[in-house]
Amino acid sequence: MSSFRLSDVISKISAVDPKLDQAIWDKMDAQARPSRSLGRLEEFAFRVARIFGTLTPEIKGKTIFTFAGDHGVAEEGISVFSQEVTHEMVANFIRGGASVNVIARFYGIEVSVVDIGVKGDFEGMPELVRRKVAHGTRNFLKEPAMTEAQAIQAIQTGVELVSEKAAQGVNLFGTGDMGIANTTPSTAVLCAITGEAPETVTGRGTGIDEATLKRKIEVIRQGLEKHQPRSDDPIDILCKVGGFEIAGIAGEILGAALNRCPIVVDGFISTAGAMIALLLAPNVKDYIFMAHRSQEPGHTEMMRWIGLDPIVDLSMRLGEGTGAAIAMNLLELSTHVLNDIASFEEAAVHSPEDL
Amino acid sequence: MSSFRLSDVISKISAVDPKLDQAIWDKMDAQARPSRSLGRLEEFAFRVARIFGTLTPEIKGKTIFTFAGDHGVAEEGISVFSQEVTHEMVANFIRGGASVNVIARFYGIEVSVVDIGVKGDFEGMPELVRRKVAHGTRNFLKEPAMTEAQAIQAIQTGVELVSEKAAQGVNLFGTGDMGIANTTPSTAVLCAITGEAPETVTGRGTGIDEATLKRKIEVIRQGLEKHQPRSDDPIDILCKVGGFEIAGIAGEILGAALNRCPIVVDGFISTAGAMIALLLAPNVKDYIFMAHRSQEPGHTEMMRWIGLDPIVDLSMRLGEGTGAAIAMNLLELSTHVLNDIASFEEAAVHSPEDL
Repeated sequence: MSSFRLSDVISKISAVDPKLDQAIWDKMDAQARPSRSLGRLEEFAFRVARIFGTLTPEIKGKTIFTFAGDHGVAEEGISVFSQEVTHEMVANFIRGGASVNVIARFYGIEVSVVDIGVKGDFEGMPELVRRKVAHGTRNFLKEPAMTEAQAIQAIQTGVELVSEKAAQGVNLFGTGDMGIANTTPSTAVLCAITGEAPETVTGRGTGIDEATLKRKIEVIRQGLEKHQPRSDDPIDILCKVGGFEIAGIAGEILGAALNRCPIVVDGFISTAGAMIALLLAPNVKDYIFMAHRSQEPGHTEMMRWIGLDPIVDLSMRLGEGTGAAIAMNLLELSTHVLNDIASFEEAAVHSPEDL
Repeated sequence: MSSFRLSDVISKISAVDPKLDQAIWDKMDAQARPSRSLGRLEEFAFRVARIFGTLTPEIKGKTIFTFAGDHGVAEEGISVFSQEVTHEMVANFIRGGASVNVIARFYGIEVSVVDIGVKGDFEGMPELVRRKVAHGTRNFLKEPAMTEAQAIQAIQTGVELVSEKAAQGVNLFGTGDMGIANTTPSTAVLCAITGEAPETVTGRGTGIDEATLKRKIEVIRQGLEKHQPRSDDPIDILCKVGGFEIAGIAGEILGAALNRCPIVVDGFISTAGAMIALLLAPNVKDYIFMAHRSQEPGHTEMMRWIGLDPIVDLSMRLGEGTGAAIAMNLLELSTHVLNDIASFEEAAVHSPEDL
């Protein structure tokens, strides 16, 4: 069914070639301004330029995939929202009224909404990308969340969607998610990989109270204890405590790296997907950017494990791709920094070396 | 000569009216997303909306004033750049090749370059705003930097330029600076106001070495000791250790508050101007936003004194208005957050209250 075999994809993802590294820094150091004075914009420009393998990187098209999926574990009562909100929000995305639509529109970024595992079905909505793997995961407190075939199908979906867009000229990607209760599987993925205790990294998601937080921690603890996912086996982790949108995001990240495009990882759920992608193919690290520091406490632990700093910190905790949109814009800005600032020579400005 | 008497301007700057405060929060709380999930974007939207006094704020025009001035104290050898670079960079701004041009262009922001006190004269350059108060300040190690009449003229220049633009429909302003050696007077302003010791807050500016840093600290220390500026008298501080661009920026901030427009304060030099403006008219605090955390160490002290947090931290240390441009874009984004995200009711999404 899928045109991408996962093992082939993984084998084709290579680290970024460092051959232009010195030339990229030399170009920025020659610009008429104090050396390294644009700080992290220079870091972003450097990384984007080496991904594209050029001294004149250009963002030609920008897409956020917002993967929507439901979670069997939602029946444990661990969110302030009812499960039907996943379905309702997908309709809101398609109408363009949600937060990610508003922010992405402001930045000229396309939002592609993917039903990768919503419980309900959709009528109409020709813009919706219909790639449902199942009608929601199963409740991981009782049984594994998904089968291995489903996990691989969801990952391959992400790879394929990126490859289709890349073929159309899109070369900057962002991740996004929608799925009531999905901070629960994301926290479980974090704990499964790092060994962190659920009570130290579990947060309030959309805003649960103290009693619900205790229940959520207990659900994660029991799920991990029951299934014992192997910390170095990302497919095993997805099967036992994952989510379809987390798997889709992991696939999107693999797809971006396969197509040699930078990809901005949104927030907590997306970063769980990034951890899965990194376990599958460590070379994806060269292609990923962490959008922002989420208010969800486990997010900082995830970024520490990955070893990348967020681009902004605006105290957000929403998902959908909202943080990715903001950070993608700063990556695009960074390409203009590299391309368009005049050098000391071009601007006829005396450099410190002239003193 | 000036159409704005400073005392009149100050008396007309009032605090923002809180009458819409609850309505602004109610509007955002009704949006189909978890409560307060957009974090600081909501704070920005709230502040911009109350400045404009509307639930539907709209940014209609965006201008950064980049004030350029020279400093007599530059002759003490406290920068990695020679003084003529101020003049050369003004030409670069006018040609559109400098960092602030590139970043502002990306965001659709006009850059208005003001000669408020550059040592050399300019030929041609019809776009240059010619408001030179003097051919640079005097060396504050030997004599006061400027006269009281010059300080007031420079401040009034800022007020007037903003008021002209506001009359043309611009309603979001940013500050910017260019002036070789101007971290030295800015640090002196910080120390004069807060009583901080120069050795604890003086930084490396454009990148000076250890020996030059020692010299710079000594120049600031001696200047303050010689002139004894009064910590509560902003005009006295400007006269003794200030700069024309710092005074112009202070005036721009007063002008924005006078015209009830939000203004984004760029970096270290601009924040020295903001401190002067706040001493002149404490109500300006309601109108100012701190763009970013500069790498210059004294900048964090300045923001602590002001009591506002920066919008981003990208490890920049450039000035010109580069940080302001990035933060202005995030303020504009915040207006779309307030205006365009659909409510639970509009989107037909179940809110937590429906559970």
